[in-house]
Amino acid sequence: MNQDVKHLLQSGAALTDRTLERLLPTPDTQPHSIHRAMRHSTFAGGKRLRPILCLEAARMVAGSHELDTPAAELGAALEMIHTYSLIHDDLPALDNDDLRRGQPTCHVAFGEATAILAGDALQTLAFQIISRLAVPPGSVVSILQAVSDAISTGVGSDLPGGLPYGMIGGQVMDIESEGVKPSAELVERIHRSKTGALITVSVVAGGFLAGADPEMIARLRTFGEKAGLAFQIVDDVLDVTQDSAQLGKTAGKDTASDKATWPAIFGIEQSLHDAQELIEDAFAALAPFGTAGDPLKSLALYLTTRKN
Amino acid sequence: MNQDVKHLLQSGAALTDRTLERLLPTPDTQPHSIHRAMRHSTFAGGKRLRPILCLEAARMVAGSHELDTPAAELGAALEMIHTYSLIHDDLPALDNDDLRRGQPTCHVAFGEATAILAGDALQTLAFQIISRLAVPPGSVVSILQAVSDAISTGVGSDLPGGLPYGMIGGQVMDIESEGVKPSAELVERIHRSKTGALITVSVVAGGFLAGADPEMIARLRTFGEKAGLAFQIVDDVLDVTQDSAQLGKTAGKDTASDKATWPAIFGIEQSLHDAQELIEDAFAALAPFGTAGDPLKSLALYLTTRKN
Repeated sequence: MNQDVKHLLQSGAALTDRTLERLLPTPDTQPHSIHRAMRHSTFAGGKRLRPILCLEAARMVAGSHELDTPAAELGAALEMIHTYSLIHDDLPALDNDDLRRGQPTCHVAFGEATAILAGDALQTLAFQIISRLAVPPGSVVSILQAVSDAISTGVGSDLPGGLPYGMIGGQVMDIESEGVKPSAELVERIHRSKTGALITVSVVAGGFLAGADPEMIARLRTFGEKAGLAFQIVDDVLDVTQDSAQLGKTAGKDTASDKATWPAIFGIEQSLHDAQELIEDAFAALAPFGTAGDPLKSLALYLTTRKN
Repeated sequence: MNQDVKHLLQSGAALTDRTLERLLPTPDTQPHSIHRAMRHSTFAGGKRLRPILCLEAARMVAGSHELDTPAAELGAALEMIHTYSLIHDDLPALDNDDLRRGQPTCHVAFGEATAILAGDALQTLAFQIISRLAVPPGSVVSILQAVSDAISTGVGSDLPGGLPYGMIGGQVMDIESEGVKPSAELVERIHRSKTGALITVSVVAGGFLAGADPEMIARLRTFGEKAGLAFQIVDDVLDVTQDSAQLGKTAGKDTASDKATWPAIFGIEQSLHDAQELIEDAFAALAPFGTAGDPLKSLALYLTTRKN
C-alpha cells in the first residue's frame, strides 16, 4: 500500500476511535448492558472508511484542518449509523451471522433484545451528535437532511429533495432478492442503496460541514456515488476470490446465500473493469479541486485495490 | 367526557392522521413490504396523544393556529417514533406480543425482518421530517437536540445538556427489572424514561417550534414531566382494574409478567392520589399562560381520568 494512503487511513482511524471513545457512554453508565453492547460492536475493528471520507471531504473544502473536531464528530456519528445497520443486519431474523470481523456479533454477545435496542440507540446517538456539531444551524440542518435521507427506505414521500437511494431500502431489496435471479438493474439499485448511500453521504456531509456551495456538493455527491459503487463491486469480487482468513469474515457467503452480486451477473473480469471505470469517473468529479483532492482520490483508489 | 376535550382529541387526531397520510410513503412505493409495514403499525388506531400535545403546546406559545402545519408535521414525526418503539417492543425477543389494539403486531403481519427494519425506518423518517420543518434552522436544531435526547439511552455522554431520562434506556431498565422486585425509585425512573421522556418532549418540541423562550420551555418541561408520569401511573392502574375489552389490549399483563408498576408498589388508592397530585403540579406550571393553557390542562386531566 502507498505510504500516503496508509498514513491517511491510520491517522483517520485513530482520530475516529478517540472521538468515538469520547462520544459513546462509558461501559459503567447505567443501564450497563446496552452501553456495553453499543461499544462492543462499535469497537469491533472497523476500518473507519466513512469517517475518513467525511474528514477528508471537509479538509478538502475548507482547505485546512481547522474543522477536524466537528468533522471527526460527524464521522463518528456516521460510523455509529454504519454499526447500527450491521447489528440489525446480523440478527437471526435477518442474516443470522454469529461472527463479524472475528468477534461474536452483538446478539451473540448480549442477547437479541439488547442487540435490537443497541442498534436503535446508536441511530439515535448519531442524531444527538449531529444536533450538537459546532457549525452554523443552517449547516446542521443540511447535514441532517442528507444523512436521514441516505439511511431511509429511499423515498422522501413528498419531502422535497427525497433521494432515490436509501440504506434501509437497500436492505429490504437485498432480503427480498435472495433466491431470485436478480437483474443487473436490481443489483445496481441494491448496491447504490445498501452501501452506496451511506458512503456518498459521508463525503457530502463533510462538504456541508465545511460550507461547500451547491456545485461542490454536486461534485462530492458524484465522487461518493461512483467510489461507493466501485467499493461494493470490489467487495463482491473479494467475497469470491479471497479466503475467510484474508477477509476477516466468512468468504463465499454471498454465493452460498445466492445474494445479488456484481460478479454473479457480469463475471469477475468485467466487475474489475467496471470498478476501474467508476474510479476514473470519481476522479474526474474532483478535477476542479486540483491537488487538494488528492487525499480523497487516493482513498478511492485504495478502496478498489484493497485485498480485504 | 367533557365536550371541549372530546373536540380537541378528535380534531387533533384527524389533523395528525391527514399529516401522517401525506408524509408516509404510499403502500405502492417500492420496496412495498416495508412501506406497508410502516403504515400498518402507524394506522393501527392510536389516540395520537403525543401529536396533540405538541400541537396544543405550539398553539399556546404562538397564541394562534398559524403554525398548525409544521406543528402537525412535528407531531407526525413524534407519532412515528412512538410507533417504531412499539414495533420493536412487540418483537419476540422483547415483549413477544401478537396483538396491539386488537390488530396483529407488525412482525406477525409482515415477518420479523421487515418489522425490525420498519421500526428502524420510522425512526429515520421522523428525523427526515424534523429536518424539513418550515421554521428557522435554529429552532430545528433545538427540536432535534430535545427529541434525540428524549429517545436515547438517557445519557448524552459528554454531550452538553444530556437528559437523565431517555426512552430506550427505559426499555432496557424495564426488561432488566422483570422478575425482580423493583424499588419505588426504579419504577419512577422507568416510567419517566420509557413513556415520560417522549411525552415531555412532545410538549417541549411544540414550544421550540413556536419560538418559546427558556423560561417557557422550563414550564413546558415541568408540565410534560408531571403529566407524563401521571399518564403512566393511570395506565398501570387501568391494567389492574379494567378488563381487556375495555382496554383494547390484554389486561393484567403487567402483573402476569411481574412488570415494575406503580400500583404494585403503592397500591391503587395511593396511585390515583399520586396521579391527582402530579396533575395539580402540571397545572401550576402553566399558570403564567392564563386561559391560553386551558387546552393543555384539559388534555392532562383527560389523561388521568380516562378509562382506556
